[in-house]
Amino acid sequence: MNNIVNSLKNKMNQKNRKKSRIYRVRKKQAGLPPGSLVHTGTKKIEKVLIDITEYNEEKFAEKTIESVEELFQQKDSNLTTWINICGLHDISLLEKIGDHFNIHPLVLEDILNTEQRPKLDDYESQLYCVLKSIEFDEAAGEITSEQVSLILDKNLLITFQERIPDCFEPVRDRLRKGKGRIRKCSADYLSYALMDLVVDNYFSVLENIGDSIQYLEDELVTNPKTENLNTIYKLRRELLFLRKSVLPLREVLNTMLRDEFDLITSDTNIFIRDVYDHVVQVMDTVETYREMISGMLDTYLSSVSNRMNEVMKVLTIIATIFIPLTFIAGVYGMNFDNFPELHWYWFYPWGFWSTIIVLGFVMFLFFKRKKWL
Amino acid sequence: MNNIVNSLKNKMNQKNRKKSRIYRVRKKQAGLPPGSLVHTGTKKIEKVLIDITEYNEEKFAEKTIESVEELFQQKDSNLTTWINICGLHDISLLEKIGDHFNIHPLVLEDILNTEQRPKLDDYESQLYCVLKSIEFDEAAGEITSEQVSLILDKNLLITFQERIPDCFEPVRDRLRKGKGRIRKCSADYLSYALMDLVVDNYFSVLENIGDSIQYLEDELVTNPKTENLNTIYKLRRELLFLRKSVLPLREVLNTMLRDEFDLITSDTNIFIRDVYDHVVQVMDTVETYREMISGMLDTYLSSVSNRMNEVMKVLTIIATIFIPLTFIAGVYGMNFDNFPELHWYWFYPWGFWSTIIVLGFVMFLFFKRKKWL
Amino acid sequence: MNNIVNSLKNKMNQKNRKKSRIYRVRKKQAGLPPGSLVHTGTKKIEKVLIDITEYNEEKFAEKTIESVEELFQQKDSNLTTWINICGLHDISLLEKIGDHFNIHPLVLEDILNTEQRPKLDDYESQLYCVLKSIEFDEAAGEITSEQVSLILDKNLLITFQERIPDCFEPVRDRLRKGKGRIRKCSADYLSYALMDLVVDNYFSVLENIGDSIQYLEDELVTNPKTENLNTIYKLRRELLFLRKSVLPLREVLNTMLRDEFDLITSDTNIFIRDVYDHVVQVMDTVETYREMISGMLDTYLSSVSNRMNEVMKVLTIIATIFIPLTFIAGVYGMNFDNFPELHWYWFYPWGFWSTIIVLGFVMFLFFKRKKWL
Amino acid sequence: MNNIVNSLKNKMNQKNRKKSRIYRVRKKQAGLPPGSLVHTGTKKIEKVLIDITEYNEEKFAEKTIESVEELFQQKDSNLTTWINICGLHDISLLEKIGDHFNIHPLVLEDILNTEQRPKLDDYESQLYCVLKSIEFDEAAGEITSEQVSLILDKNLLITFQERIPDCFEPVRDRLRKGKGRIRKCSADYLSYALMDLVVDNYFSVLENIGDSIQYLEDELVTNPKTENLNTIYKLRRELLFLRKSVLPLREVLNTMLRDEFDLITSDTNIFIRDVYDHVVQVMDTVETYREMISGMLDTYLSSVSNRMNEVMKVLTIIATIFIPLTFIAGVYGMNFDNFPELHWYWFYPWGFWSTIIVLGFVMFLFFKRKKWL
Amino acid sequence: MNNIVNSLKNKMNQKNRKKSRIYRVRKKQAGLPPGSLVHTGTKKIEKVLIDITEYNEEKFAEKTIESVEELFQQKDSNLTTWINICGLHDISLLEKIGDHFNIHPLVLEDILNTEQRPKLDDYESQLYCVLKSIEFDEAAGEITSEQVSLILDKNLLITFQERIPDCFEPVRDRLRKGKGRIRKCSADYLSYALMDLVVDNYFSVLENIGDSIQYLEDELVTNPKTENLNTIYKLRRELLFLRKSVLPLREVLNTMLRDEFDLITSDTNIFIRDVYDHVVQVMDTVETYREMISGMLDTYLSSVSNRMNEVMKVLTIIATIFIPLTFIAGVYGMNFDNFPELHWYWFYPWGFWSTIIVLGFVMFLFFKRKKWL
Repeated sequence: MNNIVNSLKNKMNQKNRKKSRIYRVRKKQAGLPPGSLVHTGTKKIEKVLIDITEYNEEKFAEKTIESVEELFQQKDSNLTTWINICGLHDISLLEKIGDHFNIHPLVLEDILNTEQRPKLDDYESQLYCVLKSIEFDEAAGEITSEQVSLILDKNLLITFQERIPDCFEPVRDRLRKGKGRIRKCSADYLSYALMDLVVDNYFSVLENIGDSIQYLEDELVTNPKTENLNTIYKLRRELLFLRKSVLPLREVLNTMLRDEFDLITSDTNIFIRDVYDHVVQVMDTVETYREMISGMLDTYLSSVSNRMNEVMKVLTIIATIFIPLTFIAGVYGMNFDNFPELHWYWFYPWGFWSTIIVLGFVMFLFFKRKKWL
Repeated sequence: MNNIVNSLKNKMNQKNRKKSRIYRVRKKQAGLPPGSLVHTGTKKIEKVLIDITEYNEEKFAEKTIESVEELFQQKDSNLTTWINICGLHDISLLEKIGDHFNIHPLVLEDILNTEQRPKLDDYESQLYCVLKSIEFDEAAGEITSEQVSLILDKNLLITFQERIPDCFEPVRDRLRKGKGRIRKCSADYLSYALMDLVVDNYFSVLENIGDSIQYLEDELVTNPKTENLNTIYKLRRELLFLRKSVLPLREVLNTMLRDEFDLITSDTNIFIRDVYDHVVQVMDTVETYREMISGMLDTYLSSVSNRMNEVMKVLTIIATIFIPLTFIAGVYGMNFDNFPELHWYWFYPWGFWSTIIVLGFVMFLFFKRKKWL
Repeated sequence: MNNIVNSLKNKMNQKNRKKSRIYRVRKKQAGLPPGSLVHTGTKKIEKVLIDITEYNEEKFAEKTIESVEELFQQKDSNLTTWINICGLHDISLLEKIGDHFNIHPLVLEDILNTEQRPKLDDYESQLYCVLKSIEFDEAAGEITSEQVSLILDKNLLITFQERIPDCFEPVRDRLRKGKGRIRKCSADYLSYALMDLVVDNYFSVLENIGDSIQYLEDELVTNPKTENLNTIYKLRRELLFLRKSVLPLREVLNTMLRDEFDLITSDTNIFIRDVYDHVVQVMDTVETYREMISGMLDTYLSSVSNRMNEVMKVLTIIATIFIPLTFIAGVYGMNFDNFPELHWYWFYPWGFWSTIIVLGFVMFLFFKRKKWL
Repeated sequence: MNNIVNSLKNKMNQKNRKKSRIYRVRKKQAGLPPGSLVHTGTKKIEKVLIDITEYNEEKFAEKTIESVEELFQQKDSNLTTWINICGLHDISLLEKIGDHFNIHPLVLEDILNTEQRPKLDDYESQLYCVLKSIEFDEAAGEITSEQVSLILDKNLLITFQERIPDCFEPVRDRLRKGKGRIRKCSADYLSYALMDLVVDNYFSVLENIGDSIQYLEDELVTNPKTENLNTIYKLRRELLFLRKSVLPLREVLNTMLRDEFDLITSDTNIFIRDVYDHVVQVMDTVETYREMISGMLDTYLSSVSNRMNEVMKVLTIIATIFIPLTFIAGVYGMNFDNFPELHWYWFYPWGFWSTIIVLGFVMFLFFKRKKWL
Repeated sequence: MNNIVNSLKNKMNQKNRKKSRIYRVRKKQAGLPPGSLVHTGTKKIEKVLIDITEYNEEKFAEKTIESVEELFQQKDSNLTTWINICGLHDISLLEKIGDHFNIHPLVLEDILNTEQRPKLDDYESQLYCVLKSIEFDEAAGEITSEQVSLILDKNLLITFQERIPDCFEPVRDRLRKGKGRIRKCSADYLSYALMDLVVDNYFSVLENIGDSIQYLEDELVTNPKTENLNTIYKLRRELLFLRKSVLPLREVLNTMLRDEFDLITSDTNIFIRDVYDHVVQVMDTVETYREMISGMLDTYLSSVSNRMNEVMKVLTIIATIFIPLTFIAGVYGMNFDNFPELHWYWFYPWGFWSTIIVLGFVMFLFFKRKKWL
């Protein structure tokens, strides 16, 4: 028995299967020094894309730059700068950025490790925050997840994403149009706006899942099938995954609210409290859904056992009626020389059939009383 | 299998079904700036209704006003003002009110988002509180829920409800009659009175559910049916929903008690402690009911398995008695030339039937010993 | 399906059944002002009974008074006064007492609401404490519960009970005899003595339940019956009820110990710690019993499934042995013209019966190997 | 149904059974004043045994004394005194000791109440600690438990046990030999040494239970029997009992570490931390074992359902093969005048038997495809 | 029944089986003085191996020494010294080391007790930390665990392992090459690097387990077998073991972060926070896996009950169709003299067979409607 796990693994390697999201773990080679930059995710785009957005209440400029050196020239202390980097596979570029902006090596390592748990790290002059951006992929019928890293410095926000199209377009749009308070505030409010956007996406994913659960619930009552069971398990796994992404995010936001960071103004704090409320709501809904799904499993199992019961009843009714009758027929098929009943003229049409009918009727009453019919 | 969730959703859209309360989530479009006013609930009344009640220990005046401008004229600093707004769909009206009373944009957004979780937000000069008012709709046999928002300012309470008839009539009545201490106290006591009213309604809803559980419990023992199972699931869902409304309310009241808000006097605090006790009692009862219901599921499943057992026993008794007898009858129906028993004259009436009777009696004793009869 | 809960309720009302303790909730009409005195329990005695006991180390006097006015005359500051009121239905009397002793209206309301959760409220000059006094009613085989309210003032203890015989007799006896330290201490020690008495009763109730569980446990192994299942459910419900009474009491005592109340001397605190320990022990035992009972349900279910298994085996053994034999007998009952075996002279006595016996023996070995026999 | 618990109790009394350890509760008569000395345990030895051990780094003396008065003479302030009392039934002796050493009446009451929960009480000048000493009784195959009370005073330790042989021999031996630091330290270190001894015994009990679990685990896979189920329940109960003894002990030690008691030096604190670690390890193991056992129940139930499945398959295979064949044989046993097949000369040997064989083979393939064979 | 545990133990001893890792407990003989050095693990290597590594930013020297005395000569206060000891069975050697480096006797005892729970003990001048180093043994298909002890002193780190090859090679390599910051920092950073290495190994073990779970999940849906059940139990046990190792490690790291130890600089603290994050991630994954596995058990049980259902259906269909037909055949096999149907010329070919076919068709429709076919 000891070799089972091992042999399973071998079989699996032969099959060369794609590994499911929920079984993926951090894959840094053990013993590498901390801050070793190894990209553990899959390369999702060809070329790393760097956007710079600079703004204050009056000015606004955005451009996509070609070489990382361009990045280091600009710095106008009156403007808030947002640097957005899509794509994580170009490690030398990341190192240059890290050097220039004084990013701690551990932060760079965490940015590259895409199996990171959402967290908030305080490096005194900088705040580092990891989020999971989640979307429901309509085509695949699955939740897809992307790691988003935020580095908040004075007047500066650097964000890292795994792919394009980036999910920050609605916020960039608000910056362009100068709508709301976003242009009046600094990088802390910008990071709030991005977090809010990420959390808003959770709600639409939850809506999709909620629809599926409600549909399944009706299906299970009217027409319980084994495939439904698989869907239940699939949904349970998706919710488990969602919970893994949201639960630590709640801690992140709670830390932001409780600890007083210099980089976050008290004005922005009110907005972060709002995101926190949303995350709590998401967790609430996830837990409700999980409870609904565990209830559905009960429904399924009890409906299966009900059907079994019904099958048993049919079998028992048929057998209970016909087995005694067959015995009687068997009796009169015996070949004894001295078998008086065989010679009674009216026995077959009256005696035999009346016995059969009376017996059948008695059985019918018996089942009626037992409520089987 | 990946496409299951997706295909389920498509099927569901075709059916165009009404979405159940428990699967509804916040529907704000992702990326909108905070404070964007979007009414997410369903429009439950045609015209927004605005009531103003002004009172102190001597004076009392109430009126329903037509235009929102009327609202802004009145303000007598000696009177406590209660503005009650029924209906949330008129967004421009809400914006005007928000502007005039300095309500934070996030509060306005939350008032409109009717899937809000009960919460208490402290905006220094104002306290914002969201509750769920719950009623048992006798006609539909369902719990209906409405979001109630309270904004507590100095000498001023603004309440928002989704529909008429509003549920605050008993309190308004006490104000009119000047009964108790309500006219002597300020807006903080008024908000306590409204909260108390909302919590009192929980008790009557719980009483309804308790009655159903007790009835079901008796039914399950005497007459377990599949429909009962559906009712159990329905009750479980109602309790889950109730719990979602009450659990955060406990936190709200706890915060009120623990943090010392300037807007709430220590006299009123004693009363809020009383509401808090009631909410704890509601939670207690909800948890007890949930445990009772999970016990009922066990009862149901074990009674189903008992019945299955009984069906099996009937089948086994019939089969065990008649199968050997049928074999014996079969033997004497064989057509061998040399079959001595067939020619023994008294064998059929004595030998055959005595074998049958003895065998039947042995079986009877066997089942008796096994306690199957 | 929506109307199920509703229709259940209607059916129930027709039946006019007594409501079980566990489904009772607070029944104050929603919207009544706080402090409205409504007696929610059932009237358990005819006339309200008022006892006064006054004592210090040297003196002791007790009397039952007729009119409430008598109560207000006496007050000797050197004596500790204990006023004990049995019966809660005379609201005007309660109001007079409340006025005279400055009892907060919310306390009076809570005294009358007999579905109160055990709690401790601090009204600065007074401490208000609610307990559940529990007894095992030997005649009905049920736990009965009564609400006991204590108001502790300086040198004064007022207690409220629902019925006579009151459960405080042993303490009154100790006061009369002047045994122990009770006469030397003040009202705080007296209230401790009463609480201790109430908690001591929990132990005897637990002993009763423990006996039942142990008996049931043996029954289930030797003779599992459906009635046992009902007893299990009944015991589970009793424990749920006990837990609801004891869990908040632990909080009450913990608050007494942690917060330093002026009314409770540090000497008495040591004794309250002792009651606290007892309550923790009661909770421990309740939880152990609950776990034992959930284990008993498992035992029951697995013994049911064992019996089912046995039934199945008997059926299968009988069917597996006789069905093939019946087939063979059927074959030799066929009427083919050309049926050589029928004419072989020794085939019936030797060929047929040896086949039957060999087949039966093979089956026997098969079942032996499968460990079914 | 109400009388079930009651009638159960009566039946039980008739049987006059020994009460199992897990159902025993504190049996003090309700209403006795606190500090009433009632011995609630069973009398385990005839005569109370009193040992005195006096020691410091140079001196060591031990003797068994006859009368309690001897105890009160000796007191040399330079020596650490350990008084060990085996047997609790002599109440007057206990009272004398209590008087002489200023032991609080509640402590004396707790010493006598042998169903005490492990706890630590701080009486300023004294520390009182209750432990459960546990042993695995090889003969009875059961865990036996004894209550050990420790009173720690300045330079003085008084210990109470229920029986002889006392379990402290190894520590007394270390004192005699002057091994280690025990003679250099005072009574606090001595009490640590005794606690450490008690906790060490938990490990050997756990080892016994662990062996049983591992053995059972193998048994269940190879040969699931109903008796194994009983052993599982027995082990579960033993672990429940162990947990009840150890969990409060962890709190006791945690309090010792956290609160800084004058009676315990910081040097000894390091050793108490060590015992604390051991207790945490014991709890860990208990929880692991509990999880293993709940896993074993699952194994048992699924193996039972597997066997049921197998029984069903055998029945179905036999029935499915022979029922159609029996029908065919039945057909050719019919007595129609016009029954052409009966007269076809080769039909019986070729037609009939080939049908039978083909049908059997088809069935065989069917079951093969279904993976039943 | 009392003797079951006992007899089980005896049987087990006869079998002389190897004890599984999860049932091993601390085996120190009860009553030994604290600090008694007893090696409780198994001796995994022949000779104890002692390595010394000395380094600062410029210098680096490592050697394997023969006698322990060599160890005591060297001490250059500018260098950081790392002493690594592989093998724990040479107690006298350990005692010498303990004496020389002022190691507390309890620490030495814990180093030798290889069933220690991961913990951190603060001995003011030294920090003592126990870890579990875990590897997945490919050959045995099992997780193997080794206890690693770290003693952190000023400029000095002493590590103890149970066997060679030691698992610290990658860190030693980084020291040799002078890569990263490791040579610039002191012993606290070195101990971080070792802890990080240990935690990194957890990830690779988790990856192995994750692969097995995913493979099993697919197997269970396509081909549920009893062996899979055993693998599920095995995986559950491995995860239980992993959890026991990781959960206390989280506490250890949390204490390191929260308490401010002089021996750990704030620079190193940032790195310890990083290890802490990894451990939290490991715990997260372990909990997710545990939930996946409990879900798999449900899948297995419901697939077993599905198959049972299918077996029942086949049986019922066959029996329901053929039992009535057999009865009819039996009827026409009766030997009544007056049996008119037997003499109707076309009855057998038309009447009889049409009845059979019609009946079969009716049954077919019946099963079709019941969705059994």
